[in-house]
Amino acid sequence: MEPANDNVESKTDVLIIGAGPSGLMAAYWMARCGINARIVDKRGTKVFTGQADGLRSRTLELFDSIGFQHRVHQEGHVAVEANFWVPDGKGNLIRQGPHCSSKVNESPFRNMLLNQGRIERFLLDSIQEHSDLQVERGVIAETFEYHNEVDDDPMGYPITVKLRTLSDEANPPGLHMAGPNQSAVASGVAPGNLLPDDWIELIAKSKAKETKTEIIKAKYLIGCDGAHSWTRKQVNIPLEGSTTDHIWGVIDVVPISNFPDIRRLGTVTHASGTILVIPRERNMVRLYVPVQTIEASAASEGRFDRSKITLEMIKGRVQAIFAPYTFDFQICDWWTAYQIGQRIAPTFSKGSRIFLAGDAVHTHSPKVGLGMNMSMQDGFNIGWKVALVAAGAAQASILGTYDAERHRLAEMLLDFDRHWSGLFTDGDGESKTRNMIKVVELFEDFAEGRNSFYGTSELVWKLENDEGPPAARHMIPGERFPPVKLRMQADGNLRWTTRLLESDGRFRVVILAGDVRTATQKDRLLVLTQHLSKSDGKQGAVLDRYAPIVGCFDCVIDVIAIHSAPWTEVEFFDFPEILRPFDPVQGWKYDKVWCDDACIWDRDCDGKGYERWGVDRLLGAMVVVRPDQYIGWAGELQEVDELTRYLDGILIQKTANEGL
Amino acid sequence: MEPANDNVESKTDVLIIGAGPSGLMAAYWMARCGINARIVDKRGTKVFTGQADGLRSRTLELFDSIGFQHRVHQEGHVAVEANFWVPDGKGNLIRQGPHCSSKVNESPFRNMLLNQGRIERFLLDSIQEHSDLQVERGVIAETFEYHNEVDDDPMGYPITVKLRTLSDEANPPGLHMAGPNQSAVASGVAPGNLLPDDWIELIAKSKAKETKTEIIKAKYLIGCDGAHSWTRKQVNIPLEGSTTDHIWGVIDVVPISNFPDIRRLGTVTHASGTILVIPRERNMVRLYVPVQTIEASAASEGRFDRSKITLEMIKGRVQAIFAPYTFDFQICDWWTAYQIGQRIAPTFSKGSRIFLAGDAVHTHSPKVGLGMNMSMQDGFNIGWKVALVAAGAAQASILGTYDAERHRLAEMLLDFDRHWSGLFTDGDGESKTRNMIKVVELFEDFAEGRNSFYGTSELVWKLENDEGPPAARHMIPGERFPPVKLRMQADGNLRWTTRLLESDGRFRVVILAGDVRTATQKDRLLVLTQHLSKSDGKQGAVLDRYAPIVGCFDCVIDVIAIHSAPWTEVEFFDFPEILRPFDPVQGWKYDKVWCDDACIWDRDCDGKGYERWGVDRLLGAMVVVRPDQYIGWAGELQEVDELTRYLDGILIQKTANEGL
Repeated sequence: MEPANDNVESKTDVLIIGAGPSGLMAAYWMARCGINARIVDKRGTKVFTGQADGLRSRTLELFDSIGFQHRVHQEGHVAVEANFWVPDGKGNLIRQGPHCSSKVNESPFRNMLLNQGRIERFLLDSIQEHSDLQVERGVIAETFEYHNEVDDDPMGYPITVKLRTLSDEANPPGLHMAGPNQSAVASGVAPGNLLPDDWIELIAKSKAKETKTEIIKAKYLIGCDGAHSWTRKQVNIPLEGSTTDHIWGVIDVVPISNFPDIRRLGTVTHASGTILVIPRERNMVRLYVPVQTIEASAASEGRFDRSKITLEMIKGRVQAIFAPYTFDFQICDWWTAYQIGQRIAPTFSKGSRIFLAGDAVHTHSPKVGLGMNMSMQDGFNIGWKVALVAAGAAQASILGTYDAERHRLAEMLLDFDRHWSGLFTDGDGESKTRNMIKVVELFEDFAEGRNSFYGTSELVWKLENDEGPPAARHMIPGERFPPVKLRMQADGNLRWTTRLLESDGRFRVVILAGDVRTATQKDRLLVLTQHLSKSDGKQGAVLDRYAPIVGCFDCVIDVIAIHSAPWTEVEFFDFPEILRPFDPVQGWKYDKVWCDDACIWDRDCDGKGYERWGVDRLLGAMVVVRPDQYIGWAGELQEVDELTRYLDGILIQKTANEGL
Repeated sequence: MEPANDNVESKTDVLIIGAGPSGLMAAYWMARCGINARIVDKRGTKVFTGQADGLRSRTLELFDSIGFQHRVHQEGHVAVEANFWVPDGKGNLIRQGPHCSSKVNESPFRNMLLNQGRIERFLLDSIQEHSDLQVERGVIAETFEYHNEVDDDPMGYPITVKLRTLSDEANPPGLHMAGPNQSAVASGVAPGNLLPDDWIELIAKSKAKETKTEIIKAKYLIGCDGAHSWTRKQVNIPLEGSTTDHIWGVIDVVPISNFPDIRRLGTVTHASGTILVIPRERNMVRLYVPVQTIEASAASEGRFDRSKITLEMIKGRVQAIFAPYTFDFQICDWWTAYQIGQRIAPTFSKGSRIFLAGDAVHTHSPKVGLGMNMSMQDGFNIGWKVALVAAGAAQASILGTYDAERHRLAEMLLDFDRHWSGLFTDGDGESKTRNMIKVVELFEDFAEGRNSFYGTSELVWKLENDEGPPAARHMIPGERFPPVKLRMQADGNLRWTTRLLESDGRFRVVILAGDVRTATQKDRLLVLTQHLSKSDGKQGAVLDRYAPIVGCFDCVIDVIAIHSAPWTEVEFFDFPEILRPFDPVQGWKYDKVWCDDACIWDRDCDGKGYERWGVDRLLGAMVVVRPDQYIGWAGELQEVDELTRYLDGILIQKTANEGL
């Protein structure tokens, strides 16, 4: 007999299961776009130690668009140069390096290390800033039903999930609460991928206590519930791939070591394997340590007794590989062990209502330092799409691009991981270093997120040969908007485009207005803005054509201009009205007109944006940036019809009585 | 008859009256150095709107040393270039400018605008991070006694203050709580300097309700209680100076104006006076507006009826001066009026136990944008001195330097204000602009805090001609440590010296180690560090010679090294042991060895520190930085005896049984 409280039944537009980095990224969009949403997590608290820590420059750019990059920069540890240590054949280790990418300055931000717990904190703060959405912790999904009959009804709630609050027994307080200053060595293995799924056990324990349940009906479900994803299992999507026979230990320690590069990113190679060294905040260092192969530890069937891996054993391995340098520690903040393997789901979505993100659909070795980044970018990608569709602003068809865009990236991630992980067990010193640099360079644009590799879809109007249009050669649809530091025309303040292109849910038409000192160019700009704002016949003009994000923005499209004239030779009030919208209470909006001109008081603002974008400084160009800062379309200033066609394929037009 | 709760009697080492910017700055040091302290404020809440807003670069450098500069940078508005608008004689206004200081890049930070409420928030967060010290709000000081008989006893509590909790009537909730999004026009004049002192009235109202009282005995008292300072009156220190006959209005509004530079720093001049325009965060602009002279409004005795000044009247004045441009607003966040004048106390301290800071000892026109900066720097200056003396780490004699250092600066502030304010009422357009630029340039080094002008004392060992020593020509005792971005040797991370020289209460011996690749220089460094750390005869060596900051630091002196060799050609473990202290649990400390070498991934780290400091790259130099980042002594690497003499004059030596 079920307890009485099963009668509690609620509706929500979007249900997110799992409040790790990918779930929180998705939730950010719900908060930002005013979506009726819920987010639950079986864990009683957020993580505080260990887990993922690597932040690639693209992820930091996205943080800037959300508004908390400065907090990461204040606390995190930068890791740019890498050193490779190899044996010299005489019992010594010698340094090869430092190696630094020649492309390091292509982002405003450098790769950083900061533990997942802080990132979750910053995301939670952003969610709170924009909404009342709270993570419901200690809550687990128990049953799932899908009602096909309302699948096609945009107002329908085809998903039914029963949620159960975990009992204290199933969710012991403090389980994951090792504090930041923990000085004792942790006594057990933290959840690595060697641990079995505990979902069923947690439910059983809680059922026995007749804990509170709730039936939720949802329009959309986003499963961000990790490698053992319950959501994925409900929709019968497998995780395909294989596991190798290599077992690795991971430790976060405050090292006591005379190894010269213990505070620098790098590898240390020994006949029996290679250690990856990753310096972190608060004097901690993370080490990835090859521990053993399964053959050596168990019978031929490949079973593995995880109780055999201890912190002492991992320490012993480090000492052996670091020799003749010393290695020890008193403080271990976190440790775990994992079995190398690559698994990926064949699809990241089920129909047009259910989506899976992060570890739920791709697992791999953590050594490439990309897991949290890819997971967050998954959540970022599906989040805005579901939010805009749920808000009635975008067509449901765009949801299909999630799988198309992210699955390909996940495959590249696994490919990178296979190449990279292999290097840690194969090859000798010299060639290993060369191979490592080669692999890093091969995957660099992908790993840093400088290229997104998003293919053609209604959201990405690619040209042949994957190039930008002649008017904006480096503005490639499907890729990120190349970051530049700009001056605001009205007040002269500086801003990176990563922050300027704020993640607020809107598409952005970026008018690269060219040299507006010339009468011709001024006129082209005027004609363009008139086309964008005024009705020209039966259909509404671009800015009056589409349904709003109700409660957030009257128009789902923001328009900004970036001109190339010197800052002092142009006046704000000379720009067309749609670039300085007027409100009788708030006055003019000043933050839509920007300038690509060098500024003497900031070396990063060098006036070379047009050059970086491949845009003619006189003639300019036009670009549509998606809500996630990726370029959707690029063309010339007069191509309003083409622009409109692009947007018509994505956004929902106002109905007759609303708009025209 | 007094109420019974007068029996409550407490002791504290330091009592701070007033929790505005200067009081909070002083409180920061108490929090940081673990001092037993109390801080009270008559206001029921911190300020949220209006008040001061200008942040000079030196203040931002100090914020960086405390750890929250990044928060100011994220929220604040930069104001670097200034435009001067003057009549052209044909009824138009013409722009002269923009004018930008040629010295703008001498600090890592640019002048910013952000309201006082946010600054107080950041300071409160820092205090909370380091201690349990809380501001006690709605508490007023009622009586004061000084017991001369224990004046000379370092353990004595000569100060007795009765505190009274204000009644609800005296301290109406919400009085100062106008929210940041307030959309209505405020209905009254906020406290400007035209309002009479309400201290006695507040006490009377609260006494009538027999509110809670407490007797506090304190070793030190810091009065940061504003222009009507109760503390100053208790010790009979006057505020000397005069008031002019000019009345000014100040408004924080979201302007609706077609004036081209409404979002830029500048002035607008008209026959009847000059308006100062200061753009701020959240699209607000602050305007300083000449309203009228007293003669025009009242009788010849100079009395002034403040009820005659209304927001409408100020708006009308702006409209007249801005013509032919329009000006209006719907949102007024805050407004006030003040009478121009300069007043200063002849001394900022009474004996060696009582100190006054901020508006309590100097009041002036707010138009120079320095008030909050000077007040905070007062609190910063007296705070560390009192904290170290209260901690038993520094000699009480250093407290005398507070008045010597800050009084001179306050006089310069008033001098600047007299020059600057005069320009707003005298002169015509063209010459006015020239004069304004001249005055700004004349006072620039002072205003920005690039020069501190601290004179010779036990804390500042100046050379003749006010220069740096031959070994470090631009390291001038009494001035700030010229900011440079450096690389940490161990991990390659970058840090500005402003953050590196953390405000933690310690003196810092900065060893500019020179080119440590050479054997000679390596040897000089070794000899120096041996002298610093080892006992050489009767007296303890520098690092084992002085009393600790109990509960915070075993040694009141921190030592760091900055070498000039290329980052890749030097190893961390080659540096002497005192530069990499070892702890059996925490391992080596890595953050004491830094490198002045250019870094390819950050243009601000250009390897030109030695050049800026006037130090030979081969031979190096040595500098002592006070806890407030000012240079106390500078010399050559071998001058340990001189260094020791400097420190002996400031710090308390360990007693025989402790140290030797």
